Amino acid sequence: MRDPRLAGWRERADAALARALPDPAASPQALHAAMRHAVLLGGKRMRPLLVYAAGTLFDADEAALDAPAAAVELIHAYSLVHDDLPAMDDDALRRGQPTVHVAYDEATAILAGDALQSLAFAVLADTPVADGVRVALLRTLAEAAGAAGMCGGQALDLAATGGGASLDLAALERLHALKTGALIRAAVRMGALCGHAGSGALAALDRYAQALGLAFQVRDDILDVEGDSDTLGKTAGKDQAQAKATFPALIGLEGSRERLRTLAAEMRDALAPFGDKASVLQELGEFAAQRDH
Amino acid sequence: MRDPRLAGWRERADAALARALPDPAASPQALHAAMRHAVLLGGKRMRPLLVYAAGTLFDADEAALDAPAAAVELIHAYSLVHDDLPAMDDDALRRGQPTVHVAYDEATAILAGDALQSLAFAVLADTPVADGVRVALLRTLAEAAGAAGMCGGQALDLAATGGGASLDLAALERLHALKTGALIRAAVRMGALCGHAGSGALAALDRYAQALGLAFQVRDDILDVEGDSDTLGKTAGKDQAQAKATFPALIGLEGSRERLRTLAAEMRDALAPFGDKASVLQELGEFAAQRDH
Repeated sequence: MRDPRLAGWRERADAALARALPDPAASPQALHAAMRHAVLLGGKRMRPLLVYAAGTLFDADEAALDAPAAAVELIHAYSLVHDDLPAMDDDALRRGQPTVHVAYDEATAILAGDALQSLAFAVLADTPVADGVRVALLRTLAEAAGAAGMCGGQALDLAATGGGASLDLAALERLHALKTGALIRAAVRMGALCGHAGSGALAALDRYAQALGLAFQVRDDILDVEGDSDTLGKTAGKDQAQAKATFPALIGLEGSRERLRTLAAEMRDALAPFGDKASVLQELGEFAAQRDH
Repeated sequence: MRDPRLAGWRERADAALARALPDPAASPQALHAAMRHAVLLGGKRMRPLLVYAAGTLFDADEAALDAPAAAVELIHAYSLVHDDLPAMDDDALRRGQPTVHVAYDEATAILAGDALQSLAFAVLADTPVADGVRVALLRTLAEAAGAAGMCGGQALDLAATGGGASLDLAALERLHALKTGALIRAAVRMGALCGHAGSGALAALDRYAQALGLAFQVRDDILDVEGDSDTLGKTAGKDQAQAKATFPALIGLEGSRERLRTLAAEMRDALAPFGDKASVLQELGEFAAQRDH
């Protein structure tokens, strides 16, 4: 990515995560090591980058953004640990590395995920902002992570995969709006809250974040068809093998690419009122829609 | 129990939990139903009662205590759902009812536990108290639930059970101080925080809560030896069958009863400065040490 701030923000997020995670030398060592393994495998840090990008749009202090950036990534990391479990997606590889239940064991993976979720809220409670903003951050993340957000989307996914019920396009979009969209919207909102954004700006950014979240998932589905396992760091072609509902399966590859173009236009429209200052959010949106891994 | 307020508090806690849980008729239904199953099986509501008892000691409004009472029970309920999973304790019965992964399935049980944890923090963010108190409540619960608290204790328990490493008394007490003690201490502290208790009072109540948490566990171990499955609503004799480290195994039944008497004295000492007003906390402590289920 081009904006020079992105590399610095990624480093800030990694440093904040490293500070937040418990000492791997302290007891219980296996739990601490599993938590670190889950977080430090080196993801794209898309959600933390969105926190910094949204926050700096309103001139929030970068130091105030470290906590929500780390917290949203901790929730994302825990969700991957639990999604990879044998009872869920049963994945052995994630980002080219063994998943947590493979590297440790299933019980430790369940607990590490649980502890990562708690840690997200503990980190957020210490954000160096006014108490009223802290409460708003905590509420935003808790609602996005729960049954009305990420967990709810995962449950819809389970129902669609397990029961063989075929989803239509509206149901598939709802599933992803919850499963991945809720946390992406929370990332953008938390950044903006740290910059004391007003309700109009929050609403515009939320339209951007909704389009970005969906674009990210449409691109994910396209990559599963077109990508190769080495670049992806996970098994390509898995969706088709599992007969999962995907955008390419429902509207074809060309239809999916067309949907991406519409979503890119929605992002541009939503960001227009902010002018050039929103260029890094624009770049992150383009990345979500065009990435090759 | 004798204090007439306890029955009313139990009803308040159940009502707050029912309000907080998502509508079982709304999608995703299985997730919502599993969350409700986990919470509404009808436990002792020990932790919510401690919130109300500690809060009213400082004349906190009962309506302000509903949120922390519900939140701590949501964390407790989620931990039981995950502890009962096949990869953990593999229990089919809880309070005489099928556990969540038996009534639904493993994936739904994992997700329901995850969503209950998120819900605890969402509920707490809406506590009708000043923002500064809300943040303190959120920090207290997040720290108690995580790797330095409940999840850490569960990891120590796994290591002790799985690896066959024999624990000494100090290690067993540390395990329980984290696994069950941390959440009990958080319940008492959250109640007191809602009543704006000072640091001296918080410290005294924390000594009481530490003794209560340990007494609860010592009594649990004694009941596992002496109780019958019908009264307990779970399988008696399981600790011995699994060669678990327990207080009776380490210091004998009589030694365990003696330890309970010492802990009861510690609770009385810690509560002494509060006089008669702490009688309901005293009663809850006696219940923890003397209960038969």
